[in-house]
Amino acid sequence: MSGPLPVAPTTTRLRPLGLSDVRITGGFWRQRQDVNAEATLAHCLDSMERTGWIGNFHAAADGLNRKQRPGREFSDSEIYKLGEAMAWEVGRSGSAVAAAELSKLTEIIRPAQSADGYLNTAFGQPGLPPRYGDLEWGHELYCYGHLIHAGVADARAGANSGLLEVAIRAADHVCRTFGAGGIDGICGHPGIETALVELFRLTGKAQYLDQAAIFVSRRGRGRLADTDFGRDYYQDDIPVRDARVLRGHAVRALYLAAGAVDVAVETGDDALLDAVIAQWDATIARRTYLTGGMGSQHAGESFGDDFSLPPDRAYSETCAAIASVMLSWRLLLATGDPRYADQAERTLFNVVATSPAADGRAFFYTNTLHQRTRGQLPSANTVSPRPSTNLRSSWFEVSCCPTNVARMLASLAGYVASADARGLQIHQYADAEIRTELDSGLPIGVRMRTDYPDDGTVTLEVSDAPPTAVTISLRVPPWADQRATLTEPGGSVRPVRAGTAAVRRVFARGDIIRLKLPMKPRWTVPDPRIDAVRGSVAVERGPLVLCVESVDLPDDSDVGVLRVNPATAPVDRDGSVIVTGELVEPPHARWPYRGAESPDGSASHPIEIPLRPYHSWAERGPSTMRIWLPTA
Amino acid sequence: MSGPLPVAPTTTRLRPLGLSDVRITGGFWRQRQDVNAEATLAHCLDSMERTGWIGNFHAAADGLNRKQRPGREFSDSEIYKLGEAMAWEVGRSGSAVAAAELSKLTEIIRPAQSADGYLNTAFGQPGLPPRYGDLEWGHELYCYGHLIHAGVADARAGANSGLLEVAIRAADHVCRTFGAGGIDGICGHPGIETALVELFRLTGKAQYLDQAAIFVSRRGRGRLADTDFGRDYYQDDIPVRDARVLRGHAVRALYLAAGAVDVAVETGDDALLDAVIAQWDATIARRTYLTGGMGSQHAGESFGDDFSLPPDRAYSETCAAIASVMLSWRLLLATGDPRYADQAERTLFNVVATSPAADGRAFFYTNTLHQRTRGQLPSANTVSPRPSTNLRSSWFEVSCCPTNVARMLASLAGYVASADARGLQIHQYADAEIRTELDSGLPIGVRMRTDYPDDGTVTLEVSDAPPTAVTISLRVPPWADQRATLTEPGGSVRPVRAGTAAVRRVFARGDIIRLKLPMKPRWTVPDPRIDAVRGSVAVERGPLVLCVESVDLPDDSDVGVLRVNPATAPVDRDGSVIVTGELVEPPHARWPYRGAESPDGSASHPIEIPLRPYHSWAERGPSTMRIWLPTA
Repeated sequence: MSGPLPVAPTTTRLRPLGLSDVRITGGFWRQRQDVNAEATLAHCLDSMERTGWIGNFHAAADGLNRKQRPGREFSDSEIYKLGEAMAWEVGRSGSAVAAAELSKLTEIIRPAQSADGYLNTAFGQPGLPPRYGDLEWGHELYCYGHLIHAGVADARAGANSGLLEVAIRAADHVCRTFGAGGIDGICGHPGIETALVELFRLTGKAQYLDQAAIFVSRRGRGRLADTDFGRDYYQDDIPVRDARVLRGHAVRALYLAAGAVDVAVETGDDALLDAVIAQWDATIARRTYLTGGMGSQHAGESFGDDFSLPPDRAYSETCAAIASVMLSWRLLLATGDPRYADQAERTLFNVVATSPAADGRAFFYTNTLHQRTRGQLPSANTVSPRPSTNLRSSWFEVSCCPTNVARMLASLAGYVASADARGLQIHQYADAEIRTELDSGLPIGVRMRTDYPDDGTVTLEVSDAPPTAVTISLRVPPWADQRATLTEPGGSVRPVRAGTAAVRRVFARGDIIRLKLPMKPRWTVPDPRIDAVRGSVAVERGPLVLCVESVDLPDDSDVGVLRVNPATAPVDRDGSVIVTGELVEPPHARWPYRGAESPDGSASHPIEIPLRPYHSWAERGPSTMRIWLPTA
Repeated sequence: MSGPLPVAPTTTRLRPLGLSDVRITGGFWRQRQDVNAEATLAHCLDSMERTGWIGNFHAAADGLNRKQRPGREFSDSEIYKLGEAMAWEVGRSGSAVAAAELSKLTEIIRPAQSADGYLNTAFGQPGLPPRYGDLEWGHELYCYGHLIHAGVADARAGANSGLLEVAIRAADHVCRTFGAGGIDGICGHPGIETALVELFRLTGKAQYLDQAAIFVSRRGRGRLADTDFGRDYYQDDIPVRDARVLRGHAVRALYLAAGAVDVAVETGDDALLDAVIAQWDATIARRTYLTGGMGSQHAGESFGDDFSLPPDRAYSETCAAIASVMLSWRLLLATGDPRYADQAERTLFNVVATSPAADGRAFFYTNTLHQRTRGQLPSANTVSPRPSTNLRSSWFEVSCCPTNVARMLASLAGYVASADARGLQIHQYADAEIRTELDSGLPIGVRMRTDYPDDGTVTLEVSDAPPTAVTISLRVPPWADQRATLTEPGGSVRPVRAGTAAVRRVFARGDIIRLKLPMKPRWTVPDPRIDAVRGSVAVERGPLVLCVESVDLPDDSDVGVLRVNPATAPVDRDGSVIVTGELVEPPHARWPYRGAESPDGSASHPIEIPLRPYHSWAERGPSTMRIWLPTA
């Protein structure tokens, strides 16, 4: 069919193209995929060997009595996510190294599995707590979710390390244990729902879909104990189909929503799908950062109230961004609405790409939009607490983000394009070779060439064309509305609106379609209800959110005292975007609130302020940074 | 001397007047003291009986093996804080009920103490963790701190229930166990430092002062394990005398600073005192809310970065406000600088008075400056999680605030006035009878009459006067600078500057001094570096910060869509302060960030906005509320 697919729905409006059908060949994302393959996979493996998280599997296999197990209770999931990343890497590049490492990992994982399929190195072993005694915090089902995703990837990518069999045994155990008549419970951390549906899609066995549907429908009814953050922390406050907005722990909320979409499209449950769509709409309109980041609260790693989006205390977890892309992609396939691809693009360029360092060996866990202090660079091989640093860290006590970035980058080609009965849809722009068969069985192929996001021109050259009329469509982001142009084969040029620009005809090999997106940097203004950024503007250029870093200012000036002049348009110059403004020297007040009649007392002098892509910030050492720029 | 004193330094510049010398006889604070005596003390006692926190002492006395001890590991401290509050109530009003309840409490506490002085119902008992095995989180020394404060109060107030003897046995045990040659440790939660110094002041035994100094000097050197929040969470990152600003958990930081001042003034350690003064200056200038509230982060209940003061995610814990008043008072006594009394006043009226409900049976734990959602009223006798509600709760899982409010209100007269060789200083305004002896042994007395903070006139009538020239001084808050007037005996009137207005003369009985403070409501503008309130203004009236509540708006409109017009002065009308502005109907945007060139799309209509004192908000049921008002 389409080659290795991260998401393979059977009934959605659009049919995704997998890693054999879409090959990213160059540019922004290919460069990151190469770093991922060459550095990140090994870095994650090394880190988990060093921290003992891999050794936990040996200990479990040997039945050791352990009082001092290293790692958090869910550290197994990181090994599975790494396994999934390795499988996609095999699918992406055919890497023999990744295949060999994955086989080794599988041989480490397999012996730790009990005869009945149970598999977790933190529970059910001598000296460790019993199985399923702590569904709130134990994460056992969550870990299975990542195991199953890895097993499915292993099979789909043709790695065939044997991880699928391990995953199936675990999934069968889950169905027996948590199915009708079993434990009437759910996991504190969603994640198994998408995995079970994907296993159903791979194997065709309805029991996995049924079990996923059971988990989705059980949630929201107070089965889990209350927490200091409330039951919304793990979405056990309101049933999925009744909720109106995403809330609580952002990663949990987004994984659950993705699983609910999967269940909805496979069971034809339109009401459930509509509920998630409405939640997505509300979340995008009121609870999402300009970067696409989600989760504004450090406490509980959670969504805050509507419009409570502080840039300086943004949590915006990398994993939440990845989960958001997973959800957007599923909704795009289900509905065909390009808004979901717009959101995925924003999130990919401005959060997912922000997390990993250029060398692929350090990561942001949180992705703040305003860094007030310079912070300190953690030393290599340090295990950092999650929120304690605002510079990229080698590894974390809870280290979900590095392996999540790895699996997303390795499978990214699976989020680029889709097909349907009428033709081919391009959702994301990158140098790529795309070739698939239409429902008719006829082939269609295009070569996509672009320097996006540096440049706004995307050229499609038809490399394979059926002899019948088909539609090739390209997404036009909202910021390009009416300023983008489309050149059809033959040369006719027309302006296009935000949404989808489509060309329908009988294509010939060599036909060229050219989309030109306007890349002039532009001022962006926030909704007045986002109190935390009132009186501020941001600059975007194409899909990229820009920021100012103190290292680019004279004397490494604090970005806290900048003002910009939005009456003057931002301009491109020497690889930066320049805006004009002033540097303020605030008065030395003993009390930071003054009577309106007393003078401000601050002085200022004009300055040119260079802005650069947010995704590359903090690559040059400690710096203060901000995306939202106060106006003069 | 001065009667029951919460803080009794031996060497400070000003000598505090205690509960026999200052009697609050009416008005704002007396009304709250009466509710505290009549409702809050019994409410706290009932709550701790119901939750089993008092029963823990019985169980410890009986040596029961307990797997399921109710309450958090520091719940003993709440019993001690209640005991302290009861003791001050005995000192304040001579209440026989409070004296009897305190005696009962002491008889419950005493049998739980081990022969060697150890006392904690959560450790060192059969089935419970061992003593001092978890200095980071066990709070054993913190609990002693509150026990010792209660014992000192018991003695000073003349309640003499026997609690002082229990406290002394515990303090002696601490000195033996944690002194030179003992455990080289500190408690994760400061608090014992002020207590040991006060016990030294009461008993004259230097070992207590020495032990307090040891605890202060040990801290900041990484003796405690690192946390997810960093070691600054419990101020174990930087030695007290080297730190430049308060940081980490706000209550811990403020209790520690207060203890350091106590140690500094008793040991003549000016460098240590200067260090705390510098930290206070920096904290007031950059890390304090308009209300005086401290601690801007829910995660870690901590101070944030400089100028990171989000109103909608303000933590501003009630206990931090009380600790801030404790610190300000100590610095005022040490230096004589009226700025500390200014800050105490702001904090008392706008945080401490905000916490308890009018009926004294429900409390704010956090004191947000912007409530975005209406929330839900917790039912009576519910044990609420700390940050989960923004309406006053009957009791909390961690219930430090109610008993802290109780002890502060009962001892409030101890924070009103002081004396020195030259005369009498009035720091806080309330109906009160004040009478003391000067250093010369001669008596001085005044009757203070005022409707403050409703009205700005404060009248002092001399009721006792020595035959020599003395100075009576009154604090003039910064907002009254040059707009306040002072009428001297004889009738001459002069404008006075912010700071201290003093009258020196040979007073006669019946002499009148009258201070008139300007009570016209006024606009207040934030420092531009406080990003979270950019483009907003607040209204203050006298010492009170005002707010708007949705219940006062047409149709209970959301306060999120208000705009005010600061060009028009706020006016007093019918018990409210009225400002003009508009109600905005924002557009229904699918994405809350728009290009600067596209139209805003919102409509608005003019409105008069009634403001009321922040301390009384949420007394009329669920409401949205804000202090900072966006400008049109």
